[in-house]
Amino acid sequence: MELKIIKSNELKKKPEGALGFGKYFSDHMFVMDYQDGKWQNARIEKYGPLLMDPSMCTFHYAQETFEGLKAYKAVDGRTLLFRPNKNFARLNKSNERLCIPTFDEDFVLYALKELVKIDRDWIPTEPNTSLYIRPFCIATDETVGAHTSHNYKFIIILSPVGTYYKEGLNPVKIMVETNYVRAVKGGVGFAKTGGNYASSLRAQEDAAAKGYSQVLWLDGVERKYVEEVGTMNVMFKINGEVITPSLEGSILAGVTRDSIIHVLKDMGVKVTERKISIDEVYEAYLNGTLEEAFGTGTAAVISPIGVLGWKDKVMTINNGETGPLSKKLYETLTGIQKGEIEDKFNWTVDVDK
Amino acid sequence: MELKIIKSNELKKKPEGALGFGKYFSDHMFVMDYQDGKWQNARIEKYGPLLMDPSMCTFHYAQETFEGLKAYKAVDGRTLLFRPNKNFARLNKSNERLCIPTFDEDFVLYALKELVKIDRDWIPTEPNTSLYIRPFCIATDETVGAHTSHNYKFIIILSPVGTYYKEGLNPVKIMVETNYVRAVKGGVGFAKTGGNYASSLRAQEDAAAKGYSQVLWLDGVERKYVEEVGTMNVMFKINGEVITPSLEGSILAGVTRDSIIHVLKDMGVKVTERKISIDEVYEAYLNGTLEEAFGTGTAAVISPIGVLGWKDKVMTINNGETGPLSKKLYETLTGIQKGEIEDKFNWTVDVDK
Repeated sequence: MELKIIKSNELKKKPEGALGFGKYFSDHMFVMDYQDGKWQNARIEKYGPLLMDPSMCTFHYAQETFEGLKAYKAVDGRTLLFRPNKNFARLNKSNERLCIPTFDEDFVLYALKELVKIDRDWIPTEPNTSLYIRPFCIATDETVGAHTSHNYKFIIILSPVGTYYKEGLNPVKIMVETNYVRAVKGGVGFAKTGGNYASSLRAQEDAAAKGYSQVLWLDGVERKYVEEVGTMNVMFKINGEVITPSLEGSILAGVTRDSIIHVLKDMGVKVTERKISIDEVYEAYLNGTLEEAFGTGTAAVISPIGVLGWKDKVMTINNGETGPLSKKLYETLTGIQKGEIEDKFNWTVDVDK
Repeated sequence: MELKIIKSNELKKKPEGALGFGKYFSDHMFVMDYQDGKWQNARIEKYGPLLMDPSMCTFHYAQETFEGLKAYKAVDGRTLLFRPNKNFARLNKSNERLCIPTFDEDFVLYALKELVKIDRDWIPTEPNTSLYIRPFCIATDETVGAHTSHNYKFIIILSPVGTYYKEGLNPVKIMVETNYVRAVKGGVGFAKTGGNYASSLRAQEDAAAKGYSQVLWLDGVERKYVEEVGTMNVMFKINGEVITPSLEGSILAGVTRDSIIHVLKDMGVKVTERKISIDEVYEAYLNGTLEEAFGTGTAAVISPIGVLGWKDKVMTINNGETGPLSKKLYETLTGIQKGEIEDKFNWTVDVDK
């Protein structure tokens, strides 16, 4: 497929001061349309609003998927993406579950590289900043019958971002959610689709009202096995071993989760993917073997858990401070992402190559 | 709140021939905006596309809710809505679950009446047709952080429709879904929100490939209790008694479901809301007491189930024909809706009163 490039002739003013997360968008976006049974009309054009009929499928039936990845300006001047192939492979997996047509991952990666090159000046260089990349697919059929759409848009937008949590790498307070359920096996929990996020807002709001940053989800069947935390995967360091919930269909297969597992193994730290119940976490807390806990995700990279609230119990982990392993993992992964540490896993992709 | 009315000065050509479902839209729509902490700027204006930023919350996180109800042209010329208060009350319940601000139900009903009056000529009068009404709320914040939006639109659009299934009141073939799960207690199954529909498309497509019209969902925990069928509630007539799954949090509280329960009681038919397993349905089929099965919903009103496939078993119900009770219920409910039968339940609302 040909990629058409129509550059904007008026460039926006770049944001000054704190970037926050996902508030500013660059000058261009990538768009391609699915119609007549194929993806077509791929172009990079000026970032701008979309004209959508009120009957548009996504407004009513949420047939939509997305991804999140980042671009960094390396210390040697290179512009690096982090494991973009993993994100596009996962997006295609989400698309399959949501009945959205899959796409050519190589072509989209090529288009993303071109887009990032054009808007390269938007990559922030302050510490803990990056260019967040948001590819997403939306169903655009203009009828209100509940059915699989025949028309879609695949769009990539770019946003210069700071840290995801106001806490940065400082520990967050997490509440174990015992009322609401995020996902269940047989559902769409493993897919990155809007419905998973919409359904989690209520719990998030309730937790915020109690002074917590995010919730820790339990499984929807037995309501005891740990699933994920807010918009991240979760890991517990218990007695020297890192334990993270295995992927059973209701959990997102995080790219950062996978990367951290590789880094841990490389560091010689034992890491196990298995079911872990909240009772087991609490028991480890009581007997003093719960050394660290942290979330992993593209947006925050590593987010240490300082306090874990479960019903009337409050577990303060590592004295509420960022643990040495959390810190080391954050530094290692962001070091690789920014080209400061040797990329022995061959994870970074230079947009100019 | 004031309702501003800006009439379109060019009216569209009305569709000719078969209407299908949700393909055509009337000349006007109702829109109000939520911003600065309140719903405001309520207006009826020309039906037309919305300008949406690519970062719009609904495109990414599906923070959206909707409703479906109908307007009919009565035999005596009145324009009737069917139990609109129930729909707006349910929409507010969905909004609460999805963290979307609730709205003044009386005001929105007033606005809907005005909208239907303005586009009254769009109500079709052929048998089995009606004006489908689609109110919906979408989150419009322009940031890609996963959070509750601060801005929304509440929109009502109108679509002249025929029968929902190509089968009309003829029986449909339904497949019991044993692989995928629609919803689980603690989730959003009771809410009318896009995510529930997006996640059901895959099962729907698989069932269609096997020659079935829709799926019958089982519960997500024990995978044995009947929940709902496709986009409808479900009822089984077993040995003279009508049994329908009780509302346990994962099932939509259908307005048609509620209406049919009232009509059945009024007809002296025993009706029970309780958990019913697929094994019990199959047992009733085997011993010859499964007399009828049907779906209930606004779009199709009553949709008789002629064949129910469950793994390798195929249950043909009432010889695959529309049963006498299904037919009677369809005639009674559409009769009340169209003002042909006395509205002893006081369900219809005259838009001119």
